[in-house]
Amino acid sequence: MASIALDQPFPGPLPAETQLTSNGRLRHFLTIEGLPRNLLIDILETAESFAWVKDQAVKKVPLLRGKTIVNLFFEASTRTRTTFELAATRLSADVLNLNISTTATIKGESLLDTLRNLEAMHADMFIVRHPDSGAVHFIAAHVAPHVTVINAGDGRHAHPTQAMLDMFTIRRHKPNFENLCVVIVGDILHSRVARSQIHALNTLGTGEIRVVGPKTLIPAEVENLGVTVFYDLEQGLRNADVVIMLRLQKERMQGALLPSENEYYRLYGLDSSRLGVAKTDAIVMHPGPINRGVEISSDVADGSRSVILEQVTYGIAVRMAVMSMALGRIGDQRE
Amino acid sequence: MASIALDQPFPGPLPAETQLTSNGRLRHFLTIEGLPRNLLIDILETAESFAWVKDQAVKKVPLLRGKTIVNLFFEASTRTRTTFELAATRLSADVLNLNISTTATIKGESLLDTLRNLEAMHADMFIVRHPDSGAVHFIAAHVAPHVTVINAGDGRHAHPTQAMLDMFTIRRHKPNFENLCVVIVGDILHSRVARSQIHALNTLGTGEIRVVGPKTLIPAEVENLGVTVFYDLEQGLRNADVVIMLRLQKERMQGALLPSENEYYRLYGLDSSRLGVAKTDAIVMHPGPINRGVEISSDVADGSRSVILEQVTYGIAVRMAVMSMALGRIGDQRE
Amino acid sequence: MASIALDQPFPGPLPAETQLTSNGRLRHFLTIEGLPRNLLIDILETAESFAWVKDQAVKKVPLLRGKTIVNLFFEASTRTRTTFELAATRLSADVLNLNISTTATIKGESLLDTLRNLEAMHADMFIVRHPDSGAVHFIAAHVAPHVTVINAGDGRHAHPTQAMLDMFTIRRHKPNFENLCVVIVGDILHSRVARSQIHALNTLGTGEIRVVGPKTLIPAEVENLGVTVFYDLEQGLRNADVVIMLRLQKERMQGALLPSENEYYRLYGLDSSRLGVAKTDAIVMHPGPINRGVEISSDVADGSRSVILEQVTYGIAVRMAVMSMALGRIGDQRE
Repeated sequence: MASIALDQPFPGPLPAETQLTSNGRLRHFLTIEGLPRNLLIDILETAESFAWVKDQAVKKVPLLRGKTIVNLFFEASTRTRTTFELAATRLSADVLNLNISTTATIKGESLLDTLRNLEAMHADMFIVRHPDSGAVHFIAAHVAPHVTVINAGDGRHAHPTQAMLDMFTIRRHKPNFENLCVVIVGDILHSRVARSQIHALNTLGTGEIRVVGPKTLIPAEVENLGVTVFYDLEQGLRNADVVIMLRLQKERMQGALLPSENEYYRLYGLDSSRLGVAKTDAIVMHPGPINRGVEISSDVADGSRSVILEQVTYGIAVRMAVMSMALGRIGDQRE
Repeated sequence: MASIALDQPFPGPLPAETQLTSNGRLRHFLTIEGLPRNLLIDILETAESFAWVKDQAVKKVPLLRGKTIVNLFFEASTRTRTTFELAATRLSADVLNLNISTTATIKGESLLDTLRNLEAMHADMFIVRHPDSGAVHFIAAHVAPHVTVINAGDGRHAHPTQAMLDMFTIRRHKPNFENLCVVIVGDILHSRVARSQIHALNTLGTGEIRVVGPKTLIPAEVENLGVTVFYDLEQGLRNADVVIMLRLQKERMQGALLPSENEYYRLYGLDSSRLGVAKTDAIVMHPGPINRGVEISSDVADGSRSVILEQVTYGIAVRMAVMSMALGRIGDQRE
Repeated sequence: MASIALDQPFPGPLPAETQLTSNGRLRHFLTIEGLPRNLLIDILETAESFAWVKDQAVKKVPLLRGKTIVNLFFEASTRTRTTFELAATRLSADVLNLNISTTATIKGESLLDTLRNLEAMHADMFIVRHPDSGAVHFIAAHVAPHVTVINAGDGRHAHPTQAMLDMFTIRRHKPNFENLCVVIVGDILHSRVARSQIHALNTLGTGEIRVVGPKTLIPAEVENLGVTVFYDLEQGLRNADVVIMLRLQKERMQGALLPSENEYYRLYGLDSSRLGVAKTDAIVMHPGPINRGVEISSDVADGSRSVILEQVTYGIAVRMAVMSMALGRIGDQRE
């Protein structure tokens, strides 16, 4: 049995076919990288149809009735687990929550044996969060043909449903990506969210993508991803249409990459005066949970240009879209 | 954003309108204090209709199908969480359980940000238990218009669904509150249950309400709530129709308020000989879990006059009533 | 109230009537011992009807809709809890998971008070796992008439649903028990699985039952159960039709019952060369989770003769059968 070698922080690009069926439908959802533009548009448009479900007296649709969806979380995350659980429940699926410590393996059982057992119980989908980059790809490469894997965040690698809900939110406010200037601010180095956002923005043909942060938190050769780097926040924000503030992942920081939180806020925190250099109709986004007074001021976070809570709302619709598209394709294959 | 100042142990009386809609329907259920008598009667009569559900082959009604109910527990409580979860499930709602430590805030996220996020996920109702008096009131004052808050116990303040299930139990055995003498025995000082019971008994026009306990566990000026104080158990029990024994909340006791458990039992424990001074058809109640041999003897707890397990059963019906009434009013408002 | 005396490691045989209604239907499912052959056959045949559910687009049947099933686990077990939860969900029941520490009793509440409270909430079935032998029998002896108890493993005593899924798996491959030679290898002394398997195999009329293990792990007088003892693995495996490898319960081992894991594998580990002395069409079973390289080699565990993952799959169907038969009998009694 293959051992899990996940020491490399960023796995190379996945062949698109890993995530797609032979007829181009969604099989797994692991990373935005390599997915065709029309598939991303498909996800956004399917999500539009679910965004209305919340206004109905009964917020449920029977699309995944009788399906078993397993939240397989190797890293604690109340918020992400909760949104996937709600999305699954509103699709009428049955949800099993398994929180698995990666240090204490379950009675010594290996990861692959755990997968085999869940497959044998006829789980239809694994929603996986894992602290190691590439772990979810590894899992997808080894699951049974009837199982779909959704990446709910792996190490520094990818968080594709977060990126898609961000695209959904942008598109609701600014429908044409070609004309947009989108700025991502903060700890780009450690952020799986930024990485997935950049891939999605590129694939959707965004006019200009900028990243802003201290040198210690910008990955080397990030320009190869098609972004412009700024080390000065105000320069980076000039004429921006969309400002995405990243969460300062304090728990990910090692050693002296950063000065104090106060110093970080002084240099890279978004307040209303700095937001003034962006376009007057610029929107402000954040994947949450926000650190008030660290990466963003409360008046901006709670202000009229913030769409942070819309992101949460649309997150349910986008996850419903991805889950139903990925499980729907199985029916297609059998036909 | 307002900070949470909950140091005051007992918030002042809430204006009734906080809990009611403009046309007098239930909006939140935070405290019995200030609620009109006809609303309490409404809850009791709605609960009667649910008390029959248990005898059906299928113990479910579709009243809250598609609603999302969040158990937001800042204090551990298997029993209360379980009864709310069962009540919600039998109303066909979807339940999300969130246990949140108040010391370790969730990745530094503030309470209000947590609420905003759950609202954005289209939660319809928060069932909240919190160790601080007034915390649930604070939450209700800050939730979005579409969200209903139910108090599942906050600090020493209130536990209104417990009080209503107690009223339901009393009424099943003794339909006319005006003629009743109800005695509450134990740690009145720290008991949110006693506080809510006293408000409910007063509102329902109970003939006589007594509290019994050691001086250290009776709050100053408790007579202002319309009760008579006894420090001697047998005097307090004389001719009682209903005897409510409180749980000795050992974990709430600080310092030397109490002698030993044995001494407490000797002075304030209910055994069958003491119960003899109450009326011959007096019923014995306890909110559970009971400490056998501390506040009550096993022969009384398990005896023919004990209605302790009925309280548990009726708790489901009363919670179903409160939940469906509070969510029903939203439909009313939209019409 | 009776105190719980569970110090005896193996309770004596239960009278069959404890588990059966007056007309011979399943009331509780605590142990295989004493159950009639036709009841075991009934379970296996009912499970056959559920084994097809997994292949349907919607893996649910409405048999237990509106029933409340409580997973009452006094010992951690993700795998067993999960399979019972999935079985209950696929029968459309509502499931409540309660993990109860046996050291820290719930706020001092006794086991029986916990049961009484759950009964009062109209739970229909308790699925109980407990570290003490006989604890589940004790619980079944004290529950209310409307509640059914299923043993999900108690101490060293019994694990009857595991044994029945093993019988189901054997029967799928080898329909006639009379002609079979079944070998159970490993820590027979501490294994509730082995004990239940031996009872089931005997009741189903298995031709020959062998147990194999080191002297320290074979219970005294085990021959009285109708098995032949072997201390040498290859001798024990000769001409076997079915080989059941037990998990080495390291956490149950006390003191010096065993040499090292390596030594154990050298003497009692199953590898493909040893499997060669069994019949050419012998199947290999294991209750899981497997310790690769301790009781079994990976090439055997993952090889063509292994039916280990089938056991997991059939476990859902067998549990669905037991649950629906046991709850169905209540309807029968009322008629």
